[in-house]
This record gives sequence, structure tokens and C-alpha cells, in this order.
Amino acid sequence: MPQIDIDPELVAEMILTLGAIGAHSGTGVWRTVYSPEWVRANARYAEWCTSAGLTVRQDAVGNVWGRLAGSRGGHSIVSGSHMDTQTPGGRYDGTLGALAALVALRALKAQFGQPLRTLEAVSLCEEEGSRFPGANFWGSRAITGTISATDPQTTVAFSGETIAEAMRVVGLDPAAIASAKRDDIDTFVELHIEQGPILEHAGVPVAVVDAITGLRHYHVTLTGEQNHAGAFPMDLRHDPMAGFAEIATGVINTAHRLGRPAVTTVGRVEVHPNGPAVVPQQVKFTVDARHPDPVLRMKLFALHENLMREVAARRGLSIDWQIHIDKEPCLSDPALVERFETAAAGQGVQVMRMASGAGHDTQQMAKIAKTCMIFVRSKDGRSHTPEEFSSIPDIVDGIRVLAAGLHALAY
Amino acid sequence: MPQIDIDPELVAEMILTLGAIGAHSGTGVWRTVYSPEWVRANARYAEWCTSAGLTVRQDAVGNVWGRLAGSRGGHSIVSGSHMDTQTPGGRYDGTLGALAALVALRALKAQFGQPLRTLEAVSLCEEEGSRFPGANFWGSRAITGTISATDPQTTVAFSGETIAEAMRVVGLDPAAIASAKRDDIDTFVELHIEQGPILEHAGVPVAVVDAITGLRHYHVTLTGEQNHAGAFPMDLRHDPMAGFAEIATGVINTAHRLGRPAVTTVGRVEVHPNGPAVVPQQVKFTVDARHPDPVLRMKLFALHENLMREVAARRGLSIDWQIHIDKEPCLSDPALVERFETAAAGQGVQVMRMASGAGHDTQQMAKIAKTCMIFVRSKDGRSHTPEEFSSIPDIVDGIRVLAAGLHALAY
Repeated sequence: MPQIDIDPELVAEMILTLGAIGAHSGTGVWRTVYSPEWVRANARYAEWCTSAGLTVRQDAVGNVWGRLAGSRGGHSIVSGSHMDTQTPGGRYDGTLGALAALVALRALKAQFGQPLRTLEAVSLCEEEGSRFPGANFWGSRAITGTISATDPQTTVAFSGETIAEAMRVVGLDPAAIASAKRDDIDTFVELHIEQGPILEHAGVPVAVVDAITGLRHYHVTLTGEQNHAGAFPMDLRHDPMAGFAEIATGVINTAHRLGRPAVTTVGRVEVHPNGPAVVPQQVKFTVDARHPDPVLRMKLFALHENLMREVAARRGLSIDWQIHIDKEPCLSDPALVERFETAAAGQGVQVMRMASGAGHDTQQMAKIAKTCMIFVRSKDGRSHTPEEFSSIPDIVDGIRVLAAGLHALAY
Repeated sequence: MPQIDIDPELVAEMILTLGAIGAHSGTGVWRTVYSPEWVRANARYAEWCTSAGLTVRQDAVGNVWGRLAGSRGGHSIVSGSHMDTQTPGGRYDGTLGALAALVALRALKAQFGQPLRTLEAVSLCEEEGSRFPGANFWGSRAITGTISATDPQTTVAFSGETIAEAMRVVGLDPAAIASAKRDDIDTFVELHIEQGPILEHAGVPVAVVDAITGLRHYHVTLTGEQNHAGAFPMDLRHDPMAGFAEIATGVINTAHRLGRPAVTTVGRVEVHPNGPAVVPQQVKFTVDARHPDPVLRMKLFALHENLMREVAARRGLSIDWQIHIDKEPCLSDPALVERFETAAAGQGVQVMRMASGAGHDTQQMAKIAKTCMIFVRSKDGRSHTPEEFSSIPDIVDGIRVLAAGLHALAY
């Protein structure tokens, strides 16, 4: 396997160029879908695709595609990620994966000419839901045909307008969304920053992702008896705060004890009446539990549910929960994982396997294609903030792994 | 000791009559200081004092006094409580103690004539701070001379008016408040509903209170590291929610293990950013810890502070707290406690000793007089709600203990 030649200066220049479109708070970027900044960034992306020798088109929701047709035709091998950011996010989350695909295809064409199989790079739109909170994965959902006919009218921005209105402003026709659907994608590979500190702590620049985690959000209500903080003795209380604290400690310890990659987070708490001198009547809280293994995931959830029931019963509290989000793990295609690990070895890039604890467009694409992801090391595990940072050498290593894997698949 | 004769029907009628002035939510009462209802209730109280043969006057803040002059003169022995309620409160909290003093003095005069020492009944104002949140103990603070010259202008109601304006509306002159100060009170005894379930659980109708609890309010800020709920492994987190849950469990267990009358409550929690899928950056919470024993109180506080420091340090969190309220215990006069216990035995009323976990006007009066309190059993330990209830037989028992003690002191 020949060494893939990726120009670090080109990569750095592209990152800085796109980071300047919507620049915010120093090193941050504020680039929401269908905004003027998003239009300009995608136009620049399209120009770069063209100058790399790719055939460019924009689909009905605004995803930008750069195509390197294969001599044998057939279904495509696609790589990319999203161009929209958090408000503000950083320069890397999303953008880097769209750029990496373009840079990889450019390098492959330059070094190896036309492939046998068709390769495509894609800049996806509105993964974050940072302008339209109900529109996460908008771009990849259009590709997989999972946007309903009414969604454009009923999907409303934080600032009130519908996504249909925002599309028309940038010259897109919401009635045409269905035309963005693809049924000719064989493989989708997404490069992304890690968003956690695992690679940094392991001292490894790049990971091949073997699964995106399964996830459940419990919204729990624990009800006891409101009482006077001074006059009511401890031994007669039915204190939902005591029950909540025991449950929060328990679920967090359970995930910790189960070991990586299990994670459980209690991120949201609401107390009623929330007064310093009142034993609360009610504590509402969320439990976010994640595991990429289909069996261990169910074990984690069962441990949490048993604990919650046990604590409530022992303390004479009533408990009730609703599951607002329940996502099954998205497993990478095992052959692809091995293919990219082999490619990394061929390029002399050290990689490790890991699961993604966050959601990605890849989960949507998995409905129509074999998928895999590549993670690049993040400084301090930071993302969704202007402080997110990955080094150019790590990024180049990631792109080389991506390109080498695509080469193995397409040439 | 002769049996004190208290008419249960008179007591019941008085409770219902006052309960009708400001009636709210069925059995509730909404009677804030200087409101028309408060004026009417005090007018009725004054009429009853007059018809009981007491000399009536209203002082500069609106406390209503009924005096039964002793033949020897000298400093007064005073009993009473507050006429204002929560919004809404019930028929008993406060009101019952003002009524009990009046009924006791009426019965003593009727049965035993003029006392040697002067007895007074008093209806105090704005103990609750339910109209003016900064004005708790307004009536008893006027008596002890602890209202400053600027307080009437700077004390503002929930609805915006100053307490000086509200006083003028009911014909009181805020400039005259200093004249309400008393330096001739020897003893103050307050009858009150228990506000907790201790008497009910013990099966005892009446308690003699040997102390009002010491109290400290900690406002704690626990700061960690905000991270992605999926991408950040458990073993690398500095999660302030995990630290908070461990601290809340710890302080609650500490008070429980120390045993009655120690109580510790975590009533208020604020999480930042409070999202279901974010490891929080910060958790702010309150710790309300109470103990009536001067030594055990400091031990309880030290245990809490050591635990908070230990958990924060072990988990790599920064911790900071401020003490917003720090009240020393108010110990009853030991001779008075024994006097009322002996009086109860003389009346055949079963009593127990207990501490008050809540604050009372008695704490203010203790600055200028020997004090003691009498508690009457509360149904389900409820107070500050329309549901508060004490039975007429229990109330009559309480008033007989009060009257018998006053008899022993004054005749």
C-alpha cells in the first residue's frame, strides 16, 4: 500500500478559511443552517471540490456533494460530515469531516487517478439542530428519506420562522426535499473529532469507531411529603431530596463500576418548592444512560431502574418515569472497521478502537448503508465550544487513514 | 393546686370566629399584617380582652395588649403569639397562642381574682414576614427595641409598598415605633401548635419547650467541569452532580444518625446548565442544619463542613459556601420549664419536653425576658397550610397548662 500524501498546509488553510466564515468569540464559529455564513461556507466547499476535480451538485435540502465517478459505476462510497455548528461551536465539530472527505478524494485523484468505484464527499446540513431544535440530522435524514411531507412547515426555529421559510430564503424548494433521497450509497464513512478525552489520555491520535452508543433518557419524578425543615424529625420524613441524592449517587456509581464505555449522567434537576427551609415535596430529574453494547446497554438500564424502584420503595416515596429518548446502538460494519484498521497500519498511523458516546449523522446513514467512523484526538476532550482543538498532525493522520481506507475500497 | 376551668365551647367559638376573618381555601386563613382582615381580627381580640376584664391598648406597631394588673405591681408576666398568617396559613399557627393567653387570663381572673403580679396577653404582628419578607418578628422586635429608625422605609412588601405606608393606612405612625419598646417584662410564655409530628407520634397532647433550635443556612457552590454526557468517560469526570449527591446523602444521614432533635435539610438546588445530556458545570444548593444543644449544634455543623470539604477534594471539585443565617439556640429558662411541668402535673395533663425546630417570637422576647413555650399536638405535624389542625381537647389541655403555670407565677 503506497503512502497517501496529504498536505498539512492545505489542511490548515482550509480549516482557517472555513473557521473565518461565521467566526465568533475568538476561535469560535457560529454558522447555523441556511444562514448567510452557511451559504458562503458551502459555496467555498463547492469551489474546492471543483478545483479538486470533483463534479459538484447541491441537493434539495442543501447538502453539497463532490463526486469522483468510478470506472465501474455502481453504488457510491461516501464520506463527509456537517457544515453547521453550535451557537457558537468551534472550527472542528462537523466541518473537519466534510473537509477531510474532500481532501482525501483530492489526494486520491491526484495520486491514483480515477477509481473503480464511485467516491463522493458531502457537506451535510443541520446536524446540530442549533437553529431548528427539532431538525437534528436534517441533511442526512433527507438522504435517507426520513423527512415527512409536513416537517418543513412544522419545524420551527428558536427565533420563530419555519425551516421551509428559511430554505426559500436561500433558494431551496421545500417541496423538492424528497428528491434528495439516495438509494445508491453502499458505504458511508464519517471522520469527526472525538468530543471526549479518551484518545488524549491514551496518547493515540486516531480511533476507528466500532459503534455509536445506545442511549436512554429517563425523566424521573420522585414525590414525597413537603415538611418544615426544623419541626419535622429526620426519622419521620419522606424526603424526595434524600431519595434523589441516593439514586443519583447510585446510577453514577453503577456506570462507573461497569467500566468504559458505560456512562450515566444526571444533568437536570428541578425541585419543588425549592426553598432552603422546606423539605421538598418533589424532585424531578433526568438520567442519561449510554452503552454501545446491545446486551450491556439493557443491563445498565435494568440496574438503574431496579435501583430507582428500590430506593423509592424503601423511603416511602412515589416514583414515576418516562423514557423520552431511547436509541439503539449503531454498530459499525465489522469488515469496514477491520479495513480502516488495516489501512491505518499501512500508513503507519497508530489507531485504537472505541465507541462514540455522542450521536452523529452516521446513525442516520446506517439506515441505507454500511457505516464506520474515524475519530481524531481532541484537546481536553472539548467540543461544542470555541475552545475545541485538534492538531494538524493528528488531523493529517486521520485523513490519511480515511483516504487509505477509501483507496482500499474503491481502487 | 386547684383545677383551672377552661370552657371548650368558648375556645372553639373563638377559633372559628377568628378563622372566619380572612378565611381562605376552606379551612385556611389569609391575614397579613396591616390588612383589613388583620385590623378586624385585632379589634375582635381587643373586645374579648375588654369583656374578660383586661385593660386594653394597642402599641405603636399594632400589637394589642390586654392587662390584668397585679396588686404588687412590678414587671409583667406576658403570654401571647402572632395574629398574622401565611398566605394562606391555617387557623392555629400564631392565632392560637394569642387566644390562649386571653382565655387563660380570663379564666384566672374569673376563678382567682386579681393576681399579685401583673399578667398580660398580647396579639403580636408580622411574625411570618408573609407580607413584608424582611419583617419577620416585627411586633416582637418593636417590643425588644430592635427595629432601626430606617427599617420602616426600607422594609418593602412583596407587592411593593413600604411597611411605613402600610402602617399609616391603618392609622399607625411609623415615627412612633420606638415607643413600643418594653423594659418591664419579666417573663414571656408562648403557646403554639407544634408544627411537627413528634407529639402525635408520642401520643402526648402537650409539650413544654426547653429550647428553640440553633440554625445555620449554608449556601454552597460546587464547581466541576462541564462535559458531554456521552463522550466523556466516568473515570475522567469532575462531576459536581456526583459530588452534590454524595454530600446531600451524607449530611442527611449525619443528622439522622445523630438522632433527634438534629435535623438537616437540603431544600434548594440549582444546576448549571441543567441540560439532560450535559455533565453539569456547577451545582448550587442549600444545607439547613439545626440543633438546640449549643455543643451538639457545633458538632453537627463541623461534621457537615468536613464532609463537604472531603467530598469536593476527593472528586477534584472546587467548593465554596456562605453562611446566610446563623442563629444560636434560644434556651428556655430552666426554672420556668420545671414550673410549667409541675403545673401540668397539677392539672393532670400529660406533657413531654421537646425542642422547637422552628423559629418563634419567643426568640426575640428572650432578649429582654425569661422565656418558655408550650406546644399543642398538631395533626400530621402540618402547619403553614389550611390543613393545620389541633383538637379542642388538646388545645384546652394546653391552655390549662399555660394558665396553671401563670397562676403559680402570679398568684
